[in-house]
Amino acid sequence: MNSADLVVMERIKRLKYRYMRCLDQKRWDDLATCFTHDAVASYSGGRYHFEGRDAILEFLETSMGAETFLSSHRVHHPEIDLTGPATAHGTWALDDVVVETAWDVTIRGAAFYEDDYVLVDNVWLISHTGYRRTYEEIQPRGEVPGLQLTASWFIDQGRSSLGAD
Amino acid sequence: MNSADLVVMERIKRLKYRYMRCLDQKRWDDLATCFTHDAVASYSGGRYHFEGRDAILEFLETSMGAETFLSSHRVHHPEIDLTGPATAHGTWALDDVVVETAWDVTIRGAAFYEDDYVLVDNVWLISHTGYRRTYEEIQPRGEVPGLQLTASWFIDQGRSSLGAD
Amino acid sequence: MNSADLVVMERIKRLKYRYMRCLDQKRWDDLATCFTHDAVASYSGGRYHFEGRDAILEFLETSMGAETFLSSHRVHHPEIDLTGPATAHGTWALDDVVVETAWDVTIRGAAFYEDDYVLVDNVWLISHTGYRRTYEEIQPRGEVPGLQLTASWFIDQGRSSLGAD
Repeated sequence: MNSADLVVMERIKRLKYRYMRCLDQKRWDDLATCFTHDAVASYSGGRYHFEGRDAILEFLETSMGAETFLSSHRVHHPEIDLTGPATAHGTWALDDVVVETAWDVTIRGAAFYEDDYVLVDNVWLISHTGYRRTYEEIQPRGEVPGLQLTASWFIDQGRSSLGAD
Repeated sequence: MNSADLVVMERIKRLKYRYMRCLDQKRWDDLATCFTHDAVASYSGGRYHFEGRDAILEFLETSMGAETFLSSHRVHHPEIDLTGPATAHGTWALDDVVVETAWDVTIRGAAFYEDDYVLVDNVWLISHTGYRRTYEEIQPRGEVPGLQLTASWFIDQGRSSLGAD
Repeated sequence: MNSADLVVMERIKRLKYRYMRCLDQKRWDDLATCFTHDAVASYSGGRYHFEGRDAILEFLETSMGAETFLSSHRVHHPEIDLTGPATAHGTWALDDVVVETAWDVTIRGAAFYEDDYVLVDNVWLISHTGYRRTYEEIQPRGEVPGLQLTASWFIDQGRSSLGAD
């Protein structure tokens, strides 16, 4: 590993961070630019498997597009291996929380991602992504005594109502 | 992006990590050294807005100073853009948990930070910080069956009492 | 801090990420390769103190080895200081979640790690590790209305059963 490799790794990390941010901010057009045209995604141990950027995007937008679907997908522990001048492999740890008020649920989980990246026209893209769950759980929100949602990205610019009169 | 840029970015990341650590460890004097004199903070979509380092510090120490206020503020996904030789912009993802036993609540949330940094006398400082919530929720602890706090930073050096006789 | 230092820091970060991943994936043989022979671990404010790699590994495998013990240990905010050509110190923030279905509990917590690393035969290893808790809590799972575990690393390759017919 040398200094030039670190620059490549930082570019790949930035790609992944942009992907995660666009997902939680529902920036679908920006999100599409993270993938190769023929990218493959295999989320949740293969339960959600899609071939091609369009199919992946359609799935993400359909399943996570509602403004009542508030998500925090966070990736950690990047282990990026440069496997060639234009290819790389990445392992990441995921923690995610979904608050879906329309379905009255909270979903929490953890997983490990295995990704492949390729350099196309001097831009790093995701060619394959997928994760295997360590655990996942779901909980009805309405049965939690006193639980209150006090902020949402889509209401009042994400401003908290905590303790407001 | 080149190797020299990476060194600058690492210095800015270190600044942010020191800020977050000092916040959760209540090291207010160290925390003050992270900001410019005229720094502006606009937390929670602007709900908590402060101008000047002293005003920011007074808010943080007043709202988070109690030893019953146990917090974990974690930032992820750094997207640092160097905008000049002495200026930079950073986007970060936040996850935070607050356990406040005096108020009998847990607060959990997620957000995105947008920060500005400046280099002053060869030290990177925060000149502007602020976040917009993705979600935030509050829950009374006393109504959670069987919930037990088993460690605190301020009791027995953070030693767990889990399973202790 | 220079470009060469960044390469060393990345190698140390990779060591820590491998350690955390091996822990949650229960890869005990790989995990053993992260430590020096005489490594010391002092988890949870010293409550769990072990001297020597074998003693550390025996503790981890005994306490976390069950396939009903599903854990997400995540470290953040690396502050790595190179203290000599073959020694370094690292401070990290930890968030961890344990779902133990056999004991019917969820454990959540946060902490700060203080680690020492040494370079042995051109490989960075952990010579000392330990953390002090910010908070830790335990909660019985059976008393949470409607809570359901929908995925496990050890069942069906971590595939979610969420919403499955």
